[in-house]
Amino acid sequence: MNPLLTPDLMQPPRADDVVAALDAMRPQLVRTPLLESAEINSRCGARVIVKAETLQHTGSYKFRGATNRLRLLDADERSRGVVSYSTGNFAQAVAAAAKALGVSAKIIVPHDTPKVKLERTRAFGAEIVFYDRTVAGQREAMAQEIAEAEGRTIVPSGNDAAVLAGYGTVGAELLEQLAEPIGAILVPCGSGGLTSGITACVAEKRPSTQIFAVEPEGFDDVTRSLAAGERLSNAPGAKTMCDALTAQYPAELPFRVLRGRARGLVVSDAEVAEAMRLAFDHFHLVVEPGGAVALAAALQGRVPVRGGTLVVIASGANVDRSQFADILRLNLS
Amino acid sequence: MNPLLTPDLMQPPRADDVVAALDAMRPQLVRTPLLESAEINSRCGARVIVKAETLQHTGSYKFRGATNRLRLLDADERSRGVVSYSTGNFAQAVAAAAKALGVSAKIIVPHDTPKVKLERTRAFGAEIVFYDRTVAGQREAMAQEIAEAEGRTIVPSGNDAAVLAGYGTVGAELLEQLAEPIGAILVPCGSGGLTSGITACVAEKRPSTQIFAVEPEGFDDVTRSLAAGERLSNAPGAKTMCDALTAQYPAELPFRVLRGRARGLVVSDAEVAEAMRLAFDHFHLVVEPGGAVALAAALQGRVPVRGGTLVVIASGANVDRSQFADILRLNLS
Repeated sequence: MNPLLTPDLMQPPRADDVVAALDAMRPQLVRTPLLESAEINSRCGARVIVKAETLQHTGSYKFRGATNRLRLLDADERSRGVVSYSTGNFAQAVAAAAKALGVSAKIIVPHDTPKVKLERTRAFGAEIVFYDRTVAGQREAMAQEIAEAEGRTIVPSGNDAAVLAGYGTVGAELLEQLAEPIGAILVPCGSGGLTSGITACVAEKRPSTQIFAVEPEGFDDVTRSLAAGERLSNAPGAKTMCDALTAQYPAELPFRVLRGRARGLVVSDAEVAEAMRLAFDHFHLVVEPGGAVALAAALQGRVPVRGGTLVVIASGANVDRSQFADILRLNLS
Repeated sequence: MNPLLTPDLMQPPRADDVVAALDAMRPQLVRTPLLESAEINSRCGARVIVKAETLQHTGSYKFRGATNRLRLLDADERSRGVVSYSTGNFAQAVAAAAKALGVSAKIIVPHDTPKVKLERTRAFGAEIVFYDRTVAGQREAMAQEIAEAEGRTIVPSGNDAAVLAGYGTVGAELLEQLAEPIGAILVPCGSGGLTSGITACVAEKRPSTQIFAVEPEGFDDVTRSLAAGERLSNAPGAKTMCDALTAQYPAELPFRVLRGRARGLVVSDAEVAEAMRLAFDHFHLVVEPGGAVALAAALQGRVPVRGGTLVVIASGANVDRSQFADILRLNLS
């Protein structure tokens, strides 16, 4: 049996786990390109390289985590299927990964999920179950119930070593693509899944590279937790257009990976919108708000890497046509 | 001296020239990814693979042609610089390629070129010279004059074997990325540069693959010329939003490559707009109108490849924010 599955999925992944995940998943993944713009470099006084993970299957890095978790199921677990819950990109990712592997998937989503997201998840053959997001803990309870009744394996979106190792393949791939020294890597951050996966790989392989978790204002739980050395939660009631990054506190396993190895940065919604516009102009990318926070931090000069190389992860592209059009129009220069 | 430069740049490139160009330029190019969507596949009844050349440096395949032409300059020619003319993407491409190789570039552009395109070309250090697009033949005469006065080499955007071989690297790269049989390749087509470059490589390496040049209505000169076996021009006065594809007749060298080896397809502006929206939704790509014609043809079922694999080139991404926002909003489903 795979050591990642037993005895403890709560052991932090190591660089070797991440590299092994990349090697195993290569045929299933888009090798997302590194993009660069002379104008943006000159504006930032540094070489700014964007890893366009927006082009991953299902439009976000989540596909890497879901695929890695599902490929590690044994034959018996595969035959019984999986159950997962998500308010966004992870639902599509699990559905797509399950379809590719021929595994049955049930996904628990909020009853007010936009129709287009439901359709896209169903297009991969997943079964949708609704929960009421106003009832705390309901979705976890439903997942537990379904898992027990149907023998399905629960696939969490972050607090799981195999999922994190899958996310970390963004970093492993980057190190393959870019041999030169990297001053800093900036990563969009919700509860810490992507940032910790990348950190697990990069902190071992390129210890001189700084890693930054970038969060939207009002949801800077990881930034404050890293500064304090303990997990802190956000004050309730904050709002942001970065709907993918509204976690209330750092997940446990990611925080164990990040503590002492990464720092946080915070950007405003206005800075995110400007980053989305510049990503359109200069990198020809569609980036969703939550996927653009790292680019926003770089454009605002939050990281002092003058003359060096700075890598920004553009982590997701699932934004509605109307919202994207509104943001493009907000400041037509 | 390189055989592509002497005695005749008007000899059609061969597959070996294209492969050699790719090998030489690899470090300078973005290896543009192949993207796929389960929903689009199911809608088309075929595997539809998009090659996202929109992500190439300067936002189009033109960078490959300009770079290949410039890398073949000898030391003396490099020191004297180049002169080129373009109404669009080729200007930026030559400027960027020249900057990368440390070559001086003068670009002749229409006096009504949008400011943003001028700025982007100047950002690469190129010098801009204006011409009056209402005066027929003026830009060619100016290029000739500058070339003679300053010893610069003229870099044409299509009718040149080295430029075509550079464009063809889109096809050579595709064949490296996709080992499975390809039923058809659909290519956006203006005067035939990109289509002929790809054809030069693919017709030799994968003779069973069909190649289609896709044009907007009113600018179907290549389609009609291929059917007739001779070069025909468009009737004057037609309009299309595909500003990159408004050539009036097939260029000579591309037509020699294409004749008997490719066929044409035609799409409407409405079909192009729908393709741009679906590229946004399902491939998370920004595609300019002219870059989306091949996808439009695939989505309209113009090519009967049921159950097979069909590759669509998305060739460019240089569209204004306001136009893109308008097109996204036109049909919000």
